[in-house]
Amino acid sequence: MTQLFAEVELEVPFHDIDVMDVVWHGHYVKYFEIGRCALLRRLDYDYPQMRESGYAWPVVDCQLRYVRSARFGQRLVVRATLQEYENRLRIAYEVQDQASGERLTKGQTIQVAVDMRSGELQLVSPTVLLERVQALLQGAP
Amino acid sequence: MTQLFAEVELEVPFHDIDVMDVVWHGHYVKYFEIGRCALLRRLDYDYPQMRESGYAWPVVDCQLRYVRSARFGQRLVVRATLQEYENRLRIAYEVQDQASGERLTKGQTIQVAVDMRSGELQLVSPTVLLERVQALLQGAP
Amino acid sequence: MTQLFAEVELEVPFHDIDVMDVVWHGHYVKYFEIGRCALLRRLDYDYPQMRESGYAWPVVDCQLRYVRSARFGQRLVVRATLQEYENRLRIAYEVQDQASGERLTKGQTIQVAVDMRSGELQLVSPTVLLERVQALLQGAP
Amino acid sequence: MTQLFAEVELEVPFHDIDVMDVVWHGHYVKYFEIGRCALLRRLDYDYPQMRESGYAWPVVDCQLRYVRSARFGQRLVVRATLQEYENRLRIAYEVQDQASGERLTKGQTIQVAVDMRSGELQLVSPTVLLERVQALLQGAP
Repeated sequence: MTQLFAEVELEVPFHDIDVMDVVWHGHYVKYFEIGRCALLRRLDYDYPQMRESGYAWPVVDCQLRYVRSARFGQRLVVRATLQEYENRLRIAYEVQDQASGERLTKGQTIQVAVDMRSGELQLVSPTVLLERVQALLQGAP
Repeated sequence: MTQLFAEVELEVPFHDIDVMDVVWHGHYVKYFEIGRCALLRRLDYDYPQMRESGYAWPVVDCQLRYVRSARFGQRLVVRATLQEYENRLRIAYEVQDQASGERLTKGQTIQVAVDMRSGELQLVSPTVLLERVQALLQGAP
Repeated sequence: MTQLFAEVELEVPFHDIDVMDVVWHGHYVKYFEIGRCALLRRLDYDYPQMRESGYAWPVVDCQLRYVRSARFGQRLVVRATLQEYENRLRIAYEVQDQASGERLTKGQTIQVAVDMRSGELQLVSPTVLLERVQALLQGAP
Repeated sequence: MTQLFAEVELEVPFHDIDVMDVVWHGHYVKYFEIGRCALLRRLDYDYPQMRESGYAWPVVDCQLRYVRSARFGQRLVVRATLQEYENRLRIAYEVQDQASGERLTKGQTIQVAVDMRSGELQLVSPTVLLERVQALLQGAP
């Protein structure tokens, strides 16, 4: 099956390094988000488009598994892959060392649609998302 | 069975609020850590004591589940509870609204001991942790 | 002359410590903000009241001077003092070690009022601020 | 006179945006640091080389002036320029909108060398820095 994904490169900044000389574990939530926004942009459904469509998409679940640590100046690749979209948005992440391809961290987030006017949780993803995913899946090479 | 836990109060600062007017989901990793450090301090085994004991305790797994959002200035209680310690350190977290006791976020972290000289992962927790936990469990009311 | 100020205590969390084992210099902007919000709350003019009053107060200038570093777990006192309010909001900060009173960091921020509807910069502070400051100055012990 | 500088491009991530829908002012300290590290790398004297040379270079002064705000997804250019190096390291920063070249933020940092063994502040920059700056100034186009 065709998978929608996006990859972003980043370089570990000094202010993300903790006293153990590695990236503090909480900063990977930011790296995941950078990957997620790149994926959502491929769908033309990043944060500004979400807001225009009348839905907020809060993260309701986030899981991170740390395999290897990353160091100051290390170049990383964040890969975000769409796993589910029909009822909720489930995205999987891998953070790799750019040079070796070695996997450092993996994880996932789950987001649900909330109607911004009524505040109601949507048990089925809004049409605006379904259409964009399906268009991209059909057009995807 | 007696459970070891610690509770910390905190107030949501302006810089933790995102454009949706709620705490950005990644900041809860910090709130968990503040609770964890309070728990480890009860054990007299917070970060400085870990380092002195010759072991690093990297977080290898972190899970967060978001139930309700938190707002600027809201007073929160973070409760960190020791769940496992014999082979690894598993700590569960609850973030509650201080006024109502309503649960906002829950989660857990898993840490493993790494010998700082050899870099070797310890499959059994070092004696230094076991002794402190058992002393506290016996002395706990 | 009577000075309006507020003091807040905080404890340096692990995630604010950099690889040199001291608070990374950028985090003091957060500590200043925590002090500023406490001061603005004394004026009943913190961020939510600013928004209700129709004015945003962007920081247009921020200066920090570092005298001594702070360490993990150190208890700090942040003191924010109102220095100017008639045409702009100038607040001075001191971060001290709680135990010794030793000064670690000082600085200031300047904010200006912007009308949220027109986007226009206000060259004189809005009445809503002037009244609150004067009421507090008259009532101040 | 020849000026040593470095430029870095970055894109504003979602987690740097505050409730006013603009970059929270404190995050520019990070953007400055990303520019500074690029400049220091040109000198082959970034954080790891500093540490190897036996000197820490704490930031003792940081000034920021905000001209225009930046928004989610905006592409920025950070330019860091060496201003002084003989007795201390003074670096000036400009953050510009990449598309228009419009200046958003400017500022500076001052760092001083501290001998990591003795803890003594150096009133003259160590030879290791002087040599690298002069080599680059002579070789600079």
